[in-house]
Amino acid sequence: MLRKEQNDFVTQTGPGTPMGNLFRSYWIPALMAEELPEADCPPVRVKLLSERLLAFRDSEGKLGLIDEFCAHRGVSLWFGRTEEGGIRCPYHGWKYDVSGQCVDVPSEPAENGFSQRIKLNSYPLIEKGGVLWTYMGDPARQPPLPEYEFASVPLSQSFISKRFQECNWLQAMEGGIDSAHVAWLHRADINEDPLVSGAPGNKYNTSDLQPVFEVAESPGGLYIGVRRNAEDDRYYWRVTPWVMPCFTGVPPRGDHPIHGHFWIPIDDHQCWAWSYDFHPQRDLTDRERQLMKDGNGIHVTYVPGTYIPASNKSNNYRIDREAQRSNRTMSGIWGVGFQDAALQESMGPICDRTKENLAGTDNGIIMARHRLMKAAKALAEKGVTPPGVDPAHHRVRQATFFLKRDESFAEKVMDTMPHELGAPLITV
Amino acid sequence: MLRKEQNDFVTQTGPGTPMGNLFRSYWIPALMAEELPEADCPPVRVKLLSERLLAFRDSEGKLGLIDEFCAHRGVSLWFGRTEEGGIRCPYHGWKYDVSGQCVDVPSEPAENGFSQRIKLNSYPLIEKGGVLWTYMGDPARQPPLPEYEFASVPLSQSFISKRFQECNWLQAMEGGIDSAHVAWLHRADINEDPLVSGAPGNKYNTSDLQPVFEVAESPGGLYIGVRRNAEDDRYYWRVTPWVMPCFTGVPPRGDHPIHGHFWIPIDDHQCWAWSYDFHPQRDLTDRERQLMKDGNGIHVTYVPGTYIPASNKSNNYRIDREAQRSNRTMSGIWGVGFQDAALQESMGPICDRTKENLAGTDNGIIMARHRLMKAAKALAEKGVTPPGVDPAHHRVRQATFFLKRDESFAEKVMDTMPHELGAPLITV
Amino acid sequence: MLRKEQNDFVTQTGPGTPMGNLFRSYWIPALMAEELPEADCPPVRVKLLSERLLAFRDSEGKLGLIDEFCAHRGVSLWFGRTEEGGIRCPYHGWKYDVSGQCVDVPSEPAENGFSQRIKLNSYPLIEKGGVLWTYMGDPARQPPLPEYEFASVPLSQSFISKRFQECNWLQAMEGGIDSAHVAWLHRADINEDPLVSGAPGNKYNTSDLQPVFEVAESPGGLYIGVRRNAEDDRYYWRVTPWVMPCFTGVPPRGDHPIHGHFWIPIDDHQCWAWSYDFHPQRDLTDRERQLMKDGNGIHVTYVPGTYIPASNKSNNYRIDREAQRSNRTMSGIWGVGFQDAALQESMGPICDRTKENLAGTDNGIIMARHRLMKAAKALAEKGVTPPGVDPAHHRVRQATFFLKRDESFAEKVMDTMPHELGAPLITV
Repeated sequence: MLRKEQNDFVTQTGPGTPMGNLFRSYWIPALMAEELPEADCPPVRVKLLSERLLAFRDSEGKLGLIDEFCAHRGVSLWFGRTEEGGIRCPYHGWKYDVSGQCVDVPSEPAENGFSQRIKLNSYPLIEKGGVLWTYMGDPARQPPLPEYEFASVPLSQSFISKRFQECNWLQAMEGGIDSAHVAWLHRADINEDPLVSGAPGNKYNTSDLQPVFEVAESPGGLYIGVRRNAEDDRYYWRVTPWVMPCFTGVPPRGDHPIHGHFWIPIDDHQCWAWSYDFHPQRDLTDRERQLMKDGNGIHVTYVPGTYIPASNKSNNYRIDREAQRSNRTMSGIWGVGFQDAALQESMGPICDRTKENLAGTDNGIIMARHRLMKAAKALAEKGVTPPGVDPAHHRVRQATFFLKRDESFAEKVMDTMPHELGAPLITV
Repeated sequence: MLRKEQNDFVTQTGPGTPMGNLFRSYWIPALMAEELPEADCPPVRVKLLSERLLAFRDSEGKLGLIDEFCAHRGVSLWFGRTEEGGIRCPYHGWKYDVSGQCVDVPSEPAENGFSQRIKLNSYPLIEKGGVLWTYMGDPARQPPLPEYEFASVPLSQSFISKRFQECNWLQAMEGGIDSAHVAWLHRADINEDPLVSGAPGNKYNTSDLQPVFEVAESPGGLYIGVRRNAEDDRYYWRVTPWVMPCFTGVPPRGDHPIHGHFWIPIDDHQCWAWSYDFHPQRDLTDRERQLMKDGNGIHVTYVPGTYIPASNKSNNYRIDREAQRSNRTMSGIWGVGFQDAALQESMGPICDRTKENLAGTDNGIIMARHRLMKAAKALAEKGVTPPGVDPAHHRVRQATFFLKRDESFAEKVMDTMPHELGAPLITV
Repeated sequence: MLRKEQNDFVTQTGPGTPMGNLFRSYWIPALMAEELPEADCPPVRVKLLSERLLAFRDSEGKLGLIDEFCAHRGVSLWFGRTEEGGIRCPYHGWKYDVSGQCVDVPSEPAENGFSQRIKLNSYPLIEKGGVLWTYMGDPARQPPLPEYEFASVPLSQSFISKRFQECNWLQAMEGGIDSAHVAWLHRADINEDPLVSGAPGNKYNTSDLQPVFEVAESPGGLYIGVRRNAEDDRYYWRVTPWVMPCFTGVPPRGDHPIHGHFWIPIDDHQCWAWSYDFHPQRDLTDRERQLMKDGNGIHVTYVPGTYIPASNKSNNYRIDREAQRSNRTMSGIWGVGFQDAALQESMGPICDRTKENLAGTDNGIIMARHRLMKAAKALAEKGVTPPGVDPAHHRVRQATFFLKRDESFAEKVMDTMPHELGAPLITV
């Protein structure tokens, strides 16, 4: 349970807020690379951390992320024309380059230097691993590029998607680091979905409904371990790495590609839920890739022409009460991604954490909130660089393994979770 | 005319408001019985008096009305699965019985008593007369069940419907206790609608357009009498009983089934307008029942799959200007229920009573407001049980009759209006 | 750039605001004459300057503009029936004449004078030139009728349209007095649109992209002159007359009909953008009229049954990125009216002028704001009648002409712009 002021603190990420400044310490995903496919393609409106921005590629293919609105009289540059090294406002022809610098005010003589004095706010935008990343903080503190494995493997080994979600980012992320809900909300899916079923370890998720959480601090965040009883005096462990502020990996299932999420605030009431799949040692197969496109695994299908999930609040997530009644699904909703979205959005735009009652299986959530708030305060009060900024913190890997009941989880994960790019899966 | 603070006082019914506490002194209709038809049927989201609740039937058919949101992390239990004596949250399997008591937290060992300490707020929900009633007040003050005649006769003798209305409950109720508007807004209908036309008394409604209101206090509310001139030195009297906080009966017309309304706040900007028809001495005929289903009389037709009237704000109530021009309807809107909804909603979400100009025919409204405010204050300041809580107050009946011009209305209604269940209609 | 409090001052026009009082000093367009075509036609809801009003014609064809809501209990008189010299509320039959005077309260005896004491707020509504005009200010200060030429010529010589716009009136008007954007936003249109193309002067708009603004005060507002280089040591001048508070004329192009706009606040977030075309000396041809109906020139096509532009915010103004890429249009939007609406609306409901960076070509805008604020203050503080109230101020005409480079613009416009009704075009 949080007090009202704590809940406000940890959920608000607009300019000037402590959590907003925390988010502005990191490279965060801004767009799918497919949204800006080529030089001079149409620009895209992007709202991130409550700021309205415009992303575009210039005629040389360079990426820009600048204020959405022209510095002149405030019209949206989304109507702008990308041309010869910049984007030109269609109102009076003011032109900006990818850094937001105004490079032409046609009505003013070039020699008076008017345009040089005009610059829109802008952020770097770089492509890595099929994602366009931005850093919205103080340029003097800009960290090296992210080194998450999903974004470091060749594109042939990965599949990345995003979906629009109508709620605050934190309750979405809290769902993602909560391995306990899998046995309930996704129970049918771990047996039926071709992208997660068939793994030898799956059976423990439903045979032991009293998982025990053990959470260890990692340099960049947490290792959230969940153990369930297995045969031969062993535990079956699933370990979710969480890297601040919002990156996670779902523990692997057999040799399936591994996957995970990150959640980026659009504003305080909306977020992007990103989902990645990759295999560290091989290309995805055509079948796997097609299944992902078709909304299997953690991915979804869309309202055509948008990144809005096809099952959404406006259609009651196409709830199927008959499937629920016959116990084919717990929630009556089809698809892991739709299920997560439905329940997370049902909490309201911002979950009221003053009313919650946390249990032992929420230890990962409790510790993640604690680390977020502590890091935001340390940044605000002493300028301390938060965990997860250093790319070394990104090189962690989700894992499933067995341990003897008397073996130490903490020791195991400190050895196991950091990984080299392309190392074998740690999986059962 | 009310002052701003009076208008706020009498229209706001959320938790902690004086009028909200008044409403919480009564059994009020929460759902149609048809909305929860059988054991383990899908649950229904219900917002009442600005509280978001969930209604469901468990596997034994028992009715529950509990907080909509799981006590754990706040997801909506509307996605829950009803199973074996309760509803189970699909997120982590927490299960609640109809009293809101948590009876299972699967991740916790049963012996640690965790689930026993978790209880959602809940209210009793009972079926009577085709309606599911709830009492949202202090359990120590819970009154006996309501004894309104429409809900006490066999179901074969009654027909009940509800419709969603986009305005505060009070302006809707004020329309309902206002017999004067019948001669204008519903003028065509009293001559043409098969469920109200043909009564000998109807002619006086349109022949005397200066009705005189006489209002008597009843134990539970008011008897609102309206007299119009009739032949032979007589008055034709129509008497609307109003029982606090919001129950009325439309004066009868010949041998037609009798009908009336009650209005239940959803929140301060929306309400449910309920409509009932019944005959105290006989079953409704198949034809009568079909006419009601088809939106005749005071009932309406719906947007399919909802309780939203088919004529509504979004389609300008399907106004028919040609029918209005040719004087077939005063308002251009077809149907008594649609007419009432259109005009009441047109006042805005909450009618601004600081601007009104009341006339003699508004005496019933003036006295009803007065009783409501007085009772809410007496409850707040001295804990006085308000009128209308005692079921004896419910046993009143709408009536139409003749009196000689020198006969006393007050004496007549005190004798006439209280009634025995199944007594003959008092009608002209 | 304006300070926050200046931006609020100049954009807010509700009752009691200084700019609202300024607007209430003038006759302003309220409806198209076609909206109230004949006696006893359906009434029309009209929101102007944040006031909700009802316009109607009585059975004699007289025009009324009164409060939308019945003085009795507040229902919308839009549901009223126009009959015998007034409009009758369908709720209880209260009837009002075009002055807002209540002339019948059927439930009250005529002799008690009840209805005489009831009067709705009302404003005069008069038809002139295809437009219904109102004056919403102090009756004691009501000025003579407007004498704008577009509304003074025979209807056969004019074509008038309006469109709904989702933004504050001021940013729309600022677009209209800004001749500089024509060469960019409307570049393709001045060469292709049959209602503006072909004029000898058009070439200067695109050959000289550094127009110089010279602005002269006129008795009623401004003469906003824009000069561009032409041959033979001459300037090509385009002069936009602006008459307070919101009337403009687009400088003429050859012998095409001349056109212009006025923008009327609905509330602070919405306005009506009016567009007129007329020729001072001849009837419009059938072809010209048809082209205007089809959305050419400054007119638009509509969502059927409304005055909402067919290209609008909900459909991203049907942006055509391929046409933009191939440079057929700067903005990707087709049609001058749609282009203006798109960009003006993209600034948000109220443009944030604290962030703007004005250039030399914004001199007309700067001076217009200055005159508006100065006049609103003089009215508020000293009761000074603002410029543009005197109909003599309306008799100005847009113009295009050549001057030798050393000839005085100010002298020329003082001679040229005032005009007699039906005088020849001043055009190149």
